[in-house]
Amino acid sequence: MTSSDTLRVAVIGTGKMGADHVRRIQGIVSGARVSAVVDVDAERAKAVAARVDGCTAYTDPVTAMTADDVDAVLIASSGPAHEAALLAALDRDLPVLCEKPLTPDAASALRVLEAERKLGHRRVQVGFMRRYDPEYVRLKALLNTGQLGRPLMLHNRHRNAASPPFFTSEMLISDSVAHETDVTRWLLGQEITAVTVLRPRPSVNAPDGLQDPQFVVFETDGGAVADVEIFVNCGFGYQVQAEVVCERGTARIGDGHAMVTNMAGRWGGTIAQDFTDRFADAYDRELQAWADATRRGEVTGPSVWDGYAAAAVCEAGVRALTDGGRVEVELVERPGLYA
Amino acid sequence: MTSSDTLRVAVIGTGKMGADHVRRIQGIVSGARVSAVVDVDAERAKAVAARVDGCTAYTDPVTAMTADDVDAVLIASSGPAHEAALLAALDRDLPVLCEKPLTPDAASALRVLEAERKLGHRRVQVGFMRRYDPEYVRLKALLNTGQLGRPLMLHNRHRNAASPPFFTSEMLISDSVAHETDVTRWLLGQEITAVTVLRPRPSVNAPDGLQDPQFVVFETDGGAVADVEIFVNCGFGYQVQAEVVCERGTARIGDGHAMVTNMAGRWGGTIAQDFTDRFADAYDRELQAWADATRRGEVTGPSVWDGYAAAAVCEAGVRALTDGGRVEVELVERPGLYA
Amino acid sequence: MTSSDTLRVAVIGTGKMGADHVRRIQGIVSGARVSAVVDVDAERAKAVAARVDGCTAYTDPVTAMTADDVDAVLIASSGPAHEAALLAALDRDLPVLCEKPLTPDAASALRVLEAERKLGHRRVQVGFMRRYDPEYVRLKALLNTGQLGRPLMLHNRHRNAASPPFFTSEMLISDSVAHETDVTRWLLGQEITAVTVLRPRPSVNAPDGLQDPQFVVFETDGGAVADVEIFVNCGFGYQVQAEVVCERGTARIGDGHAMVTNMAGRWGGTIAQDFTDRFADAYDRELQAWADATRRGEVTGPSVWDGYAAAAVCEAGVRALTDGGRVEVELVERPGLYA
Amino acid sequence: MTSSDTLRVAVIGTGKMGADHVRRIQGIVSGARVSAVVDVDAERAKAVAARVDGCTAYTDPVTAMTADDVDAVLIASSGPAHEAALLAALDRDLPVLCEKPLTPDAASALRVLEAERKLGHRRVQVGFMRRYDPEYVRLKALLNTGQLGRPLMLHNRHRNAASPPFFTSEMLISDSVAHETDVTRWLLGQEITAVTVLRPRPSVNAPDGLQDPQFVVFETDGGAVADVEIFVNCGFGYQVQAEVVCERGTARIGDGHAMVTNMAGRWGGTIAQDFTDRFADAYDRELQAWADATRRGEVTGPSVWDGYAAAAVCEAGVRALTDGGRVEVELVERPGLYA
Repeated sequence: MTSSDTLRVAVIGTGKMGADHVRRIQGIVSGARVSAVVDVDAERAKAVAARVDGCTAYTDPVTAMTADDVDAVLIASSGPAHEAALLAALDRDLPVLCEKPLTPDAASALRVLEAERKLGHRRVQVGFMRRYDPEYVRLKALLNTGQLGRPLMLHNRHRNAASPPFFTSEMLISDSVAHETDVTRWLLGQEITAVTVLRPRPSVNAPDGLQDPQFVVFETDGGAVADVEIFVNCGFGYQVQAEVVCERGTARIGDGHAMVTNMAGRWGGTIAQDFTDRFADAYDRELQAWADATRRGEVTGPSVWDGYAAAAVCEAGVRALTDGGRVEVELVERPGLYA
Repeated sequence: MTSSDTLRVAVIGTGKMGADHVRRIQGIVSGARVSAVVDVDAERAKAVAARVDGCTAYTDPVTAMTADDVDAVLIASSGPAHEAALLAALDRDLPVLCEKPLTPDAASALRVLEAERKLGHRRVQVGFMRRYDPEYVRLKALLNTGQLGRPLMLHNRHRNAASPPFFTSEMLISDSVAHETDVTRWLLGQEITAVTVLRPRPSVNAPDGLQDPQFVVFETDGGAVADVEIFVNCGFGYQVQAEVVCERGTARIGDGHAMVTNMAGRWGGTIAQDFTDRFADAYDRELQAWADATRRGEVTGPSVWDGYAAAAVCEAGVRALTDGGRVEVELVERPGLYA
Repeated sequence: MTSSDTLRVAVIGTGKMGADHVRRIQGIVSGARVSAVVDVDAERAKAVAARVDGCTAYTDPVTAMTADDVDAVLIASSGPAHEAALLAALDRDLPVLCEKPLTPDAASALRVLEAERKLGHRRVQVGFMRRYDPEYVRLKALLNTGQLGRPLMLHNRHRNAASPPFFTSEMLISDSVAHETDVTRWLLGQEITAVTVLRPRPSVNAPDGLQDPQFVVFETDGGAVADVEIFVNCGFGYQVQAEVVCERGTARIGDGHAMVTNMAGRWGGTIAQDFTDRFADAYDRELQAWADATRRGEVTGPSVWDGYAAAAVCEAGVRALTDGGRVEVELVERPGLYA
Repeated sequence: MTSSDTLRVAVIGTGKMGADHVRRIQGIVSGARVSAVVDVDAERAKAVAARVDGCTAYTDPVTAMTADDVDAVLIASSGPAHEAALLAALDRDLPVLCEKPLTPDAASALRVLEAERKLGHRRVQVGFMRRYDPEYVRLKALLNTGQLGRPLMLHNRHRNAASPPFFTSEMLISDSVAHETDVTRWLLGQEITAVTVLRPRPSVNAPDGLQDPQFVVFETDGGAVADVEIFVNCGFGYQVQAEVVCERGTARIGDGHAMVTNMAGRWGGTIAQDFTDRFADAYDRELQAWADATRRGEVTGPSVWDGYAAAAVCEAGVRALTDGGRVEVELVERPGLYA
């Protein structure tokens, strides 16, 4: 395709996240439209397709990928279904935006890595959308200027008002801290080499048996230390903050001071209540950037390597949570494709 | 047209603002494309058109408006050229987004008002883009909830790092405070009835003879008082702030606390250096909202009445600046079309 | 006395403010003690004196001033009683700290000015305690460095949760804005030459008939413009803010960001509920500075001239409130004693 | 003594800290004066004494403690000299304010603990002055209300512009983190049971061989986790921050937003450059509170137990720094005197 053509996207998975991406591609992203939706629930797929002009509903991802009017694939199905869809897309050399996690574990991520390596060029972008959040982008840009010197430490806060019923103690690492895994690697430009997880007394507001909050400490191959407070039943809202401490100064994002009110004895502002509110812009920009790059024949976002490394760190983190102590992260050698 | 069709826009004026809108419609706005560009400078029009697929260059606005592939018009030419273009578009019943000011004075704005009134339905949206800025939108939404009670006062700050060479003392009112004129009317939902302008000693950094800063006080028909500090050679950046004081509390926007650094003995953040930086999002959202509404056959943004009222207030403001004292604003009766 | 002696103070007036000053001198100020208290209510004076070692109760200020163990006088009686006490103290050449206002009007202030001028040296300090507030002190110090260039505008906010029952529309000027009168003169180092008062629609929470809020505009002999929002029934707390706009930058105090909480969907902090909370430090420092200077035989704080000028500006302000329009301030020539 | 008498204090040690306390007692604290100063350097002691009325210079602490005009002792000599002075004061049953550290190690602190226990009542207060800082006081008061629920985590930042030449890697723990040791114990009301120290790559601005920064993690007997970033060559200033994360919300102090400027493309404020600036108020209030309580015959501040526990935690911290891994803290049983 040439960059003047509209990108025709097959969206795989029409749950909450997939349906939101359909809305985003149709109403917000310039130069792209949804030509196919896929869901094992045929009725749900049809219902979504019916609201979009020129959109066909499928139940099988591979069939959708062979349709004439599909140029690219957005994977928003459940994590365990990602690997098959990714391999099928790579088999057809189709550009992919795959929601995080790339796959649920490092071994399966490695198989996707191997498939793309064999293909010989990058086709897959992983949905670490924080790299498109305007605040994180400014922070990264400031670090890149070198004004602050080299980063030594990174403090992260990741708070949710409440966790969904199915959430487990391990998911605080593999689902939530997964974002800070990528943020740490991306902001610092370093790989994570060891993980330690501390277990504060659980909050009285956490569901019975859930280890919430947790305090995670990363060490990196560049000698930096990053910490993550993950607290998914903090009660007061959704809040994501990061402070990078460098040799000559620090920079902090996430305080969210857009509007300040004085009322009833207090000054301050509101806290976002969920990630779709806090990161709405990031998702919009992620999809626009992906569509733009794809139309130019490029992949510019987080790679399969990034998805694999995050999976490997999260696996080590879950072991550290379970066994206690410090767990080292083992990565395969980085292929030249991701240099 | 139906809402599934892509909106084909003729952009009139390809100076800095017009060219920026072309880029925005092509690269950011979903569901719209530029099919025509118009400029009295034929070479400039051709150069812009050459970078856009399926875009024709014109030197005459009316010719462009009669083209088959033009569904709507965006006017970004110089202020004095607006009236003719607006009347031509209304003559052809074409939807219009017209950059501010609607026209340079209240009398010409009234002629446009009359033309649209005769047409019998609204077609024109005026480019008061602050109504699409996320911070102003949140402020307006908060006021609409009634939590703070009724607004009593509004404090505005409007600061530019430096004014362009052609800027006159009158333009601080007619060009800069014009924004606060609309912001005041929109946030309070009231008309401005009188203007007073105070003239502090000019800054040593203002060009010789320029009355900069100025301090403007508005009174409204709802009994509110609004003040505007306009300072177009403040030196340190572009800064727009507003605080609404209501019966039970206040709300302030524009502090811009996105990223906070500690460095060299100071904490804080950077200040935007011009309006394209501060209001980039507002322009994106304005054009997306206009394209969406236009495809649905609606006009939802600031009206010709808003453009006329702003012009009338600015005329009174310029008189107050020149003559001193308090100048009353006279408006014609508001036509039912704008009720 | 020599600076090693403890300063023995007669406190005139043992109402809320006077009793608070007694507590302050006894428990907080170094190098001073209360040796006499005076109140027309003999029982109240005795009750206060009984709590302080070596303190005598009086009903007549002049008798107290002649006691052997009185080195200095603190006047905290009602405003109309100030003149007689001030003249008696000047007659005995005693150092005085006089709570604001110096006297209730410009004419009586002039009589005190004349008495001190005849005495030939300064003895009286007026209780404009904001000059001792750490934030105002930092603001003044920054202005003095010249880093920001010359001041052009000053924006003040002065908000009280609720006004006492006896408060009148005129008292918003003469009692509340009196502070900003002094702040403006002191920060800018300029005299106020004209006052305009705008009258927004009163808040539904203001007592019937009270013009609250008001918006006051000062012009100065240095060409600066200062505005004051005075709102004594804002409901949410006690809040005092000031922003000075200079040729190369601005500085703002009063945001009060000491502790930030996240709770129940909001971030932010508490707002002080009254002036004794917000300005507790300022009163402590004011009295310590007065005691220190007095023991050295000096007067370093706001002078009788400052008290007189504030009274003259407030009188003009009350006229502007009543009559509308812009009212000029007339001051007598400044005596050399206050150069 | 009765509370109406002035407290006569012997200040032991007239180095920078001791001389500052002399100035504070003489000029700021109400109800106290310096009657004796002690220094092994006789000339230095004499020079300080000469500036204070009625003050005698000594070279031997014990001799000073036996003087008729000494009611209480302030120990500001070097750490290794504390034990002897403390034991001598306890021997004479004199009230003591002892600068931190109580003594350089846990064993010597235990000996002081034992001496006070035998005496049978508390006489010693340790100089953990942060407990008197207005921001920490507000934070503690908020925690005490229970509004935020129980504390789960505490994040501390402790940054110095540059370290003195004699500073060692161990002193980052024993001298700097010593403060957070007390802050953690005091704010949470829990004992620290284990310490882990992470060692980021040292900053290029740290002196050769100094492990700076460090990242310290405390675990407590109440199940909380506290972390401390200690960075003594951060370059940009002196900055102390704390955020307590509780079951229903968080509270943060130390952002220091007193005055905000806009200048040269940046908004923000200045950062204190050393602890005497940041904690000037805390020292003033600490000494006033100590003088007030002592005159009432009470000890209300941090106890010998607090000094001992801090020493024990710091010893464990130094071991954790040296040996790596997690080191448990062993405390003796808490005597009833400190219940």
